[in-house]
Amino acid sequence: MVSVNKIKLIQSLIKKKYRQKYNLFVVEGIKNIKEFTFSRFSIKNIYSTEPISFLKEGQYEIISYEELKKISFLKTPHDALALIEIPEPRVDEISEIQLVLDDIQDPGNLGTIIRLADWFGIDQIICSKETVDVYNPKVIQAAMGSLSRVNVVYTDLTEFLSHTEIPVYATDMNGENIYTASLPEKAFIIMGNEGNGISADIRSVCTHILTIPRFGKEQKTESLNVAMSTGIILSEFFSQKEKLKK
Amino acid sequence: MVSVNKIKLIQSLIKKKYRQKYNLFVVEGIKNIKEFTFSRFSIKNIYSTEPISFLKEGQYEIISYEELKKISFLKTPHDALALIEIPEPRVDEISEIQLVLDDIQDPGNLGTIIRLADWFGIDQIICSKETVDVYNPKVIQAAMGSLSRVNVVYTDLTEFLSHTEIPVYATDMNGENIYTASLPEKAFIIMGNEGNGISADIRSVCTHILTIPRFGKEQKTESLNVAMSTGIILSEFFSQKEKLKK
Repeated sequence: MVSVNKIKLIQSLIKKKYRQKYNLFVVEGIKNIKEFTFSRFSIKNIYSTEPISFLKEGQYEIISYEELKKISFLKTPHDALALIEIPEPRVDEISEIQLVLDDIQDPGNLGTIIRLADWFGIDQIICSKETVDVYNPKVIQAAMGSLSRVNVVYTDLTEFLSHTEIPVYATDMNGENIYTASLPEKAFIIMGNEGNGISADIRSVCTHILTIPRFGKEQKTESLNVAMSTGIILSEFFSQKEKLKK
Repeated sequence: MVSVNKIKLIQSLIKKKYRQKYNLFVVEGIKNIKEFTFSRFSIKNIYSTEPISFLKEGQYEIISYEELKKISFLKTPHDALALIEIPEPRVDEISEIQLVLDDIQDPGNLGTIIRLADWFGIDQIICSKETVDVYNPKVIQAAMGSLSRVNVVYTDLTEFLSHTEIPVYATDMNGENIYTASLPEKAFIIMGNEGNGISADIRSVCTHILTIPRFGKEQKTESLNVAMSTGIILSEFFSQKEKLKK
């Protein structure tokens, strides 16, 4: 049984204000919960409609599907829901390729970018303070288990980037062709806001501007979404690394 | 005013059966409708809550937002909705890089892949007969205006691919590293079903298997979604083309 107070608390976590107040966020689905269980995150409660093989009996509570529906943020809830503590923010050592997000607003985009970072072995994403909150349920859902492995930090980007010796890359429509540019092994890659791109302040600290060329004949061709652009840019950086190793 | 019969007809178009019966599909949003207006598609009706600058007065009908809500497939409808005729299927000449989809099921994935094809100047996508219907409203929404420029054809893939001299590429976990493989200028690229990958029949006609290497240290890393994989694979093919041109 989930108590009425607990239901209220969990429902409130859809808002950032309450996630910060209680220092908690929600992860749904046994598969995703498993990845957070074996990570640096501390699990507070797990509610499940079925036995969980990788946990001992006291580590979770069996609830009905009706109860799960009351606490889930999904239209069609999965099998389980976990309350997890928001860890203290920390800045890890910078990996060779460092992803930086300047005001990404769409939760699905941030989630997809976290999955990409996980795929490419990028342990940390640096976000501007205005970027969508990583503990937003839609971000967690889109990131699947990847947030358990990728550290996401919020900071003042201009300050953060102004002291680095490492080249800072951004993309727009008028940069160098990413496929023929010679890309370095170490770089900051900045991805901008969905509507406005990179802010003027951040652009002033960029050392290189790249463009993903459009091969479509017509100018009307839709632009690529920011998550897809991030995938293509990361892929090209790692492609050049792999070719050098060969 | 949209008549009761017309409302019923439009609502029925959420199902493939009725799209085929009436030979019609729905496009929403003035921006998207504009791209279909200036394309090979024939527009049957346009209903709009506001004047449309690129059309003459008799070419569309002004309706209220309440009426739009009754015919829209979106939770929050845009400004306009168009009924468009489904054109006769035709197979165009094959472009150098030809995208082939083997049972893609998720409408969002097909829509995103159509946008990618548009970006990379691929005029045609060949789909297996079991691939999700391209006139599904969710596909149209995800593809934005790109479907007005990319021809999507359904056919028997094994038959279609068995007579070609062009190399046929697919991806799985155990293929050649895509970043160090030497990729040809002309190729069929086959993307498989979200859950099961490429079917055995299709695999038997593939001449090359590629892998997008995973750089994440942990084996647990989430896999890439099929639309993201398509973006990365197309990007690498075009990257190698661009480097050769230089």
